[in-house]
Amino acid sequence: MSIRVGIIGISGFGGGETMRLIAGHPSFELVYAAGEGSAGRRLVDRFPGVPAKLADMVIEKWDPATLPKLDVLFASLPTGTSAEALARVSKDVKIVDIGGDHRYVEGWAYGLADVWPDRIEGRSRVANPGCFPAATLTALAPLLADRLIEPGNIVIDAKTGISGAGRGGADSRFGYAESNENLVPYGLLKHVHMPEMARTIEQLSGGSAAGLVFTPHLVPMTRGLLATIYCRGRVTTAECLDAARRFYAGRAFVRVTDTPPQTKWASGSNLAFVSYAADPERDLVIAMGAVDNLGKGAAGQAVQNANLICGLPETAGLEGVPVWP
Amino acid sequence: MSIRVGIIGISGFGGGETMRLIAGHPSFELVYAAGEGSAGRRLVDRFPGVPAKLADMVIEKWDPATLPKLDVLFASLPTGTSAEALARVSKDVKIVDIGGDHRYVEGWAYGLADVWPDRIEGRSRVANPGCFPAATLTALAPLLADRLIEPGNIVIDAKTGISGAGRGGADSRFGYAESNENLVPYGLLKHVHMPEMARTIEQLSGGSAAGLVFTPHLVPMTRGLLATIYCRGRVTTAECLDAARRFYAGRAFVRVTDTPPQTKWASGSNLAFVSYAADPERDLVIAMGAVDNLGKGAAGQAVQNANLICGLPETAGLEGVPVWP
Amino acid sequence: MSIRVGIIGISGFGGGETMRLIAGHPSFELVYAAGEGSAGRRLVDRFPGVPAKLADMVIEKWDPATLPKLDVLFASLPTGTSAEALARVSKDVKIVDIGGDHRYVEGWAYGLADVWPDRIEGRSRVANPGCFPAATLTALAPLLADRLIEPGNIVIDAKTGISGAGRGGADSRFGYAESNENLVPYGLLKHVHMPEMARTIEQLSGGSAAGLVFTPHLVPMTRGLLATIYCRGRVTTAECLDAARRFYAGRAFVRVTDTPPQTKWASGSNLAFVSYAADPERDLVIAMGAVDNLGKGAAGQAVQNANLICGLPETAGLEGVPVWP
Amino acid sequence: MSIRVGIIGISGFGGGETMRLIAGHPSFELVYAAGEGSAGRRLVDRFPGVPAKLADMVIEKWDPATLPKLDVLFASLPTGTSAEALARVSKDVKIVDIGGDHRYVEGWAYGLADVWPDRIEGRSRVANPGCFPAATLTALAPLLADRLIEPGNIVIDAKTGISGAGRGGADSRFGYAESNENLVPYGLLKHVHMPEMARTIEQLSGGSAAGLVFTPHLVPMTRGLLATIYCRGRVTTAECLDAARRFYAGRAFVRVTDTPPQTKWASGSNLAFVSYAADPERDLVIAMGAVDNLGKGAAGQAVQNANLICGLPETAGLEGVPVWP
Repeated sequence: MSIRVGIIGISGFGGGETMRLIAGHPSFELVYAAGEGSAGRRLVDRFPGVPAKLADMVIEKWDPATLPKLDVLFASLPTGTSAEALARVSKDVKIVDIGGDHRYVEGWAYGLADVWPDRIEGRSRVANPGCFPAATLTALAPLLADRLIEPGNIVIDAKTGISGAGRGGADSRFGYAESNENLVPYGLLKHVHMPEMARTIEQLSGGSAAGLVFTPHLVPMTRGLLATIYCRGRVTTAECLDAARRFYAGRAFVRVTDTPPQTKWASGSNLAFVSYAADPERDLVIAMGAVDNLGKGAAGQAVQNANLICGLPETAGLEGVPVWP
Repeated sequence: MSIRVGIIGISGFGGGETMRLIAGHPSFELVYAAGEGSAGRRLVDRFPGVPAKLADMVIEKWDPATLPKLDVLFASLPTGTSAEALARVSKDVKIVDIGGDHRYVEGWAYGLADVWPDRIEGRSRVANPGCFPAATLTALAPLLADRLIEPGNIVIDAKTGISGAGRGGADSRFGYAESNENLVPYGLLKHVHMPEMARTIEQLSGGSAAGLVFTPHLVPMTRGLLATIYCRGRVTTAECLDAARRFYAGRAFVRVTDTPPQTKWASGSNLAFVSYAADPERDLVIAMGAVDNLGKGAAGQAVQNANLICGLPETAGLEGVPVWP
Repeated sequence: MSIRVGIIGISGFGGGETMRLIAGHPSFELVYAAGEGSAGRRLVDRFPGVPAKLADMVIEKWDPATLPKLDVLFASLPTGTSAEALARVSKDVKIVDIGGDHRYVEGWAYGLADVWPDRIEGRSRVANPGCFPAATLTALAPLLADRLIEPGNIVIDAKTGISGAGRGGADSRFGYAESNENLVPYGLLKHVHMPEMARTIEQLSGGSAAGLVFTPHLVPMTRGLLATIYCRGRVTTAECLDAARRFYAGRAFVRVTDTPPQTKWASGSNLAFVSYAADPERDLVIAMGAVDNLGKGAAGQAVQNANLICGLPETAGLEGVPVWP
Repeated sequence: MSIRVGIIGISGFGGGETMRLIAGHPSFELVYAAGEGSAGRRLVDRFPGVPAKLADMVIEKWDPATLPKLDVLFASLPTGTSAEALARVSKDVKIVDIGGDHRYVEGWAYGLADVWPDRIEGRSRVANPGCFPAATLTALAPLLADRLIEPGNIVIDAKTGISGAGRGGADSRFGYAESNENLVPYGLLKHVHMPEMARTIEQLSGGSAAGLVFTPHLVPMTRGLLATIYCRGRVTTAECLDAARRFYAGRAFVRVTDTPPQTKWASGSNLAFVSYAADPERDLVIAMGAVDNLGKGAAGQAVQNANLICGLPETAGLEGVPVWP
């Protein structure tokens, strides 16, 4: 018996990637797709490689009033627009919000699926973490849970592919010629992803994240996100790796590696690669997390969350091997 | 009951992509992997994102004498090296040679799977087409079969991503800094893929391909291959599109589009996109074929051929939707 | 005594590159800059690396009525907008129009500077060739002049970097994530650059260009343009190379090479690299031309034309060595 | 009267860029070029766009015994090989070593040209800083000199284009297909550039750099290097910017910007862009330095150092405006 799912914001990168994963999912059936720019067009007009079974589905203009019967709704809307859009969706429809509006909002689980699946199972409203928090918190969680680092003294230097900025066109800064061969720091000291990272660090450590520093950078690649995280703690590299292997024992999507992770390792998948380098002499721990910003950073994590709230195997539809090269 | 498969040359791009597809295949089970450079290492050391079930498989040094029991063997070896390597493999083992040594060789089917599956079904030796022929011939076949163009007056201008040159390292020409922001024509008037294209054009048309011209170019992208083909014929664009839609009716992997195909449409998949633009006034037909050079151009086509010779559904393990963006 | 120059459309890629070349020119002094999007901003706000002497120049809103005293005006406006804009400029001001409105227009020289400098010297109105014609015609001119190929049977397959599409932002097709790892044919059978190529081919050969075919492709790189041109003629490679070496003897910017030219060879310069491969048996000549689409394809050629009409050494301000890698 | 210069290691990226700058230098004349791989070939065979005056110069096999009369020698050799190679060069020849062997070696000036030109003027042996130190120390110098940050608590997260790894070919890790769409941290806690950074930080601050942390990353672009540096200090952003503007007042190549610097701003030039973001509440200062790793990070700085030791204007041959886009 298939589970009926819909996607809002299918024209965007996150929505498109969700469609790709749903198309290959053993239990989910896409029965509804809505988008702004591409409303009225068929899926095949927007995604020329879409399977025949989905080719002629028409992209609707989003309207909660005309929603068909759905079991699960994925929302991939610009931050600031989903709160109102989703308020009118029936309680009977489970929702995974890939956008930012419901993170740490009452009644919504924060869907850090590899870290606390138990907080997500059985819920009907899940807020997907941002792409930067997904990579950062997956790398930090084992160290924070074991009190190996100080929660109040964490510096996150993160680098993302340009798909993280959303579809081009709106802004010439993301034009090919402007972005190619360019590396751009932005949002210093005030990025929108900071609060959810601080809240989660505090929940995992029981301490204050007061000193948190986060600097994102745009890197000239389409996909991929790396967080290089500088922490204080008197611990060895081996102890960090061991803590992570224990923390993620039996978990499907987190790979703990001895060598620094590369973003391409995760390309097209829901995997997260984490590693560590520590020097107790210098009271220093470097944690690293590499993901596909559209996979574990968006659509992959969203499908994993949907699996959890639907009582499906966590890996359903997410077993694809990363694309290399 | 699973089918036991092996891969030779797994360290290369074609072999690695074959592994990725086998890992997600419903009937094939990878039981043997051999490679030169990476012999002795585990698959997970070479491919950090490989599934747990394959992680600890050790890459062997290729030796036909120590081959385990296999049903199908995929060979992805440099052209010139596979003829001898495969001569000593038992007749009981079906072989798909992704390399160039057995194309139009006695006893080997030429595996142009979308064009003539009937020539492949039930065979035990299949030579996979080269990446350029895969894109070119898939676009030309309908026009040649319907005698809409002259077989003796075809100009192929082809562009491939750099993974088509094989793994970097051997040659600084394929180093990142040398290749990035560079467009390189090569192999003018004498590329190794010309004979198989000429032979196939003649088989499809019944005429001579004497005047065939083929110019490959290296384009600064990892994957993707486009063939832009200039032909002579008094036919309209609509007639070409119609011929292609009839020729590929009911076929799973060829998409005939009204607009010029883009390589990214096929990325990570076994799809081929073909389109046409014709001007009867000028006796001109432009045929275009876009593929992923490692998908339809190598590993995807190889798995499709393996499905055909094993009597499996042609699409088994090949239903992944292209990765976008 | 310096020559006072102005640039209209300085915010665009062509206008910006013209500014870069003027800034290093021994005789030209930039005294006026106008742009749409960036009007009111200082040059340094738009181009952070601009020399101190130009940093505080304010970009004006274009208005012919408020033009300062100028000797030369460079116009880099979208095709269709420069005809009216330039009609009201005083006859005393020499103009080089980088845009497309004045190509083969009465009273304007067609500025194919390396091919016919004598047609440009002493003129006061020059229409700069398009980027595709610049590469194509520079490669074809020697063969046409010597009647080595048929003018009526020429197929041009051209590939350009994405800066050729103008600044991003207007169109998501040119966004980084959409353009990266993608190869896109466009404008089949009806590109705006065809007429100027046909006209020039006819002037150079004395024959008809009736059968001209031109297919442009967008390649994922910022700069660089290659034209691969398929012609009919019973001539050897050596004869083509020899004709080109004679045609361009003593000319500064055209390099005739024995091996196929690569776009990166010309990056950041006004150079054009041409080469040939011919097979008399097949009545086939392949001509190749590689340029920087913003150099010889736009701003470099424009400055060369300005040098010619000002009676300066043709190479003034254009002696920079290409950037590698 | 021209100054006779030679380049060792001209086949590499640093040597090639030095040649490009020398070719446009008003006082330097290239009279000698040596290289390993390309010995025996002409410059034009290696650099197709080289000016006519240099085209036929033959690249020598390096041999101090057969050195022609030189005033200045630029050495761009792999670290570990230049100490011995240069030991036998006559004291009459001024040397700028772009490689790493002579940094903080007795008798050699450390050529941080924008920070302490007075330590370089009049010397005959200069060790060029590494690319990472060039960007990092240029950004930190004003803060250290004014005691605005703690020298003992500095975390450097640096990102470089792949040309920083030297020419491809030696190592498949730098092949296009492996490097494209990939972001790679490396050399954690033990990069070869750390000692020169620590020594310089101590000289500028008078304090200990004991806690220095440095993590380099390979980014998929050819050129460009950004250092994002996390420091401790109770100071405002405005105070940092003001300190930098005072420190670099009247200096030609350092641009202090209010917004975070982007690597493309410096592309092809000897410029360094520095900026700062500070939060006294959190005792936090973020310093940023963006350069072209082959410009200020190698050849540009080398020519600037050569100008200083030859008593030429510091900007001679280095006035080129950055290439954009």
